[in-house]
Amino acid sequence: MRTGKACVGFKTFQSGTPTLNSKPNTMFNLDSLCFFKTNLQSAIIILHPVSTVTGTISSYSITMLKVPEHQVAGRQAIDGKLGPLIDNSGHFYKPLQDDDERGTRELTFYHSFSSNTRIPHHIRRFFPVFHGTQLLKASDGSGLRPHLVLQDITSDHLNPSILDIKIGSRTWYLEASNDYIQNCFHRDKTTTTVSLGFRICGLQIYNESGFWKPGRKLVRNFTADDVRSVLRKFVSSNVGPEPDCCFADSVYGGCDGILERLLELKTWFEDQTMYHFRSCSVLLLFDKESFLRGKTPFAEVKLIDFAHVVDGNGVIDHNFLGGLCSFIKFVSQVLADSKGSTMEDKF
Amino acid sequence: MRTGKACVGFKTFQSGTPTLNSKPNTMFNLDSLCFFKTNLQSAIIILHPVSTVTGTISSYSITMLKVPEHQVAGRQAIDGKLGPLIDNSGHFYKPLQDDDERGTRELTFYHSFSSNTRIPHHIRRFFPVFHGTQLLKASDGSGLRPHLVLQDITSDHLNPSILDIKIGSRTWYLEASNDYIQNCFHRDKTTTTVSLGFRICGLQIYNESGFWKPGRKLVRNFTADDVRSVLRKFVSSNVGPEPDCCFADSVYGGCDGILERLLELKTWFEDQTMYHFRSCSVLLLFDKESFLRGKTPFAEVKLIDFAHVVDGNGVIDHNFLGGLCSFIKFVSQVLADSKGSTMEDKF
Repeated sequence: MRTGKACVGFKTFQSGTPTLNSKPNTMFNLDSLCFFKTNLQSAIIILHPVSTVTGTISSYSITMLKVPEHQVAGRQAIDGKLGPLIDNSGHFYKPLQDDDERGTRELTFYHSFSSNTRIPHHIRRFFPVFHGTQLLKASDGSGLRPHLVLQDITSDHLNPSILDIKIGSRTWYLEASNDYIQNCFHRDKTTTTVSLGFRICGLQIYNESGFWKPGRKLVRNFTADDVRSVLRKFVSSNVGPEPDCCFADSVYGGCDGILERLLELKTWFEDQTMYHFRSCSVLLLFDKESFLRGKTPFAEVKLIDFAHVVDGNGVIDHNFLGGLCSFIKFVSQVLADSKGSTMEDKF
Repeated sequence: MRTGKACVGFKTFQSGTPTLNSKPNTMFNLDSLCFFKTNLQSAIIILHPVSTVTGTISSYSITMLKVPEHQVAGRQAIDGKLGPLIDNSGHFYKPLQDDDERGTRELTFYHSFSSNTRIPHHIRRFFPVFHGTQLLKASDGSGLRPHLVLQDITSDHLNPSILDIKIGSRTWYLEASNDYIQNCFHRDKTTTTVSLGFRICGLQIYNESGFWKPGRKLVRNFTADDVRSVLRKFVSSNVGPEPDCCFADSVYGGCDGILERLLELKTWFEDQTMYHFRSCSVLLLFDKESFLRGKTPFAEVKLIDFAHVVDGNGVIDHNFLGGLCSFIKFVSQVLADSKGSTMEDKF
């Protein structure tokens, strides 16, 4: 039996409609294509044709793509817009953007990085696994579009707290268009990018009452003090005005903690002159439930968004490195303060 | 006997004139003030009144100020312009600039830094010693102007090779005027500041035939390869197209070498959140003659130019740090290459 893949249709669902008359992974004929009841806002059906020995397609199995539940920044595949999708097998499908050639650039980066033998194993772990590209009907209804197939970083976690931090005091680069440079220049000055060397682009923090997920405008106006506050809340059991930082030591500290991972990255950035990561984010993930159940990893550090990676030309990425060092200092201070307050609590 | 200081006059000399009829440090009365033959382009005479026990000024000793011979960047006190002067006692007199409040800012920095007990001793050594201020007639003939009295870093060296490297991928800062930001933004993009995270602002390299001191325009157009070439020439016995790097190991390497000093600075910048050093330079000095005679220090690393230092506000100076790391990488590569070529020579 030969198998193949075919991307057939895109349809936006409203919760509860249309009528349920099939289930995921049901085998069915193309003629009887139908949709099933779902509680997702939107979904893409991929039909995998199942052929007979004579090559005739007898039936299809389906894969359902949905809007990532835990996406905290970037364009979202909602309201007819172009955005990434995920499946239930741990894949993240990111549409290649065609404005400013950023799509091509991200794909080029993944190809280069995947085959680059000079990337140490412990550094490769910081990057989502790349599974190639796949043609899918885009979530904005614009037709077939190539998507990067990447590791879905959140797939192993039920309620992950996530911080998306765009690193660097400058998001533009000399090779970009003048309009792009001016837009970035303005945005960098009016956020913490210039002052702190990084900015939080999005976040969600899980607590007993659900996720705290401030809106984009609020996040964009974050000050240095807001950043400190977010870093405290990220490792607290509460997100009120006085976060308890009770997970700080476990999540930020220790030899498996986020701080140690960031320092590993820093060491690599002090040396590597292959890539310059403009507008790239460090994603911090912490899953309280995994932690409380003793599951590992309960905290992760990943790099994401490589649409603006340019050739390093033999120079280190001083922009990323400087911003990363600044962010490390912020995390260190939260960790030190939390230890200080724990000590105070004890005496 | 009480002594005091008085700043009395400024006069521009042409080489060989006026007639010699007094010597430096000669005691003489104000009435008999006269000038002496000099081969300096310009000089300032400071009269130090020598008083009797009754307080009457009986005579004056003189200090002669001259244009720094080894100044490689910044405004120069020539052609009626405002610039720094030096004396023969190892002092560097830097006029306080009054545009953009940069003079006040530099003085404020020196006062703050001098009295700051959180500056480790080994870091203080990187900064010129600050001896307060002194009212002097400015070299541009504009009248009395306060001057910072600083350590003249070059005074112990006969023929120092000097590199002045402005550190940081951004020379502007949010507190500056819009015009200043736009000027810096343009200059940063058109020099190596943005691409490398630093730019060479000036240099002189001593060799058998005298100093190689390329003009400002040439220096401003330096590329990454030019920077590498300059770093090789700095530690070579020749400045031709194939510098021999014969001093690389002694000057850049070793526990007293420039690289080790730069790494010391880096460690401090990873931690300190007190000052942000915009448009500040690292000055590298190497005196071949001191080296060949076994005198120490034959190589030095200093920080200079603090007219654009702003409050760190609890954030590390990620802009300086990133640029410094990039510069460190360049120096490391020259050192590694020179070792490689030495090995190749041997085998």
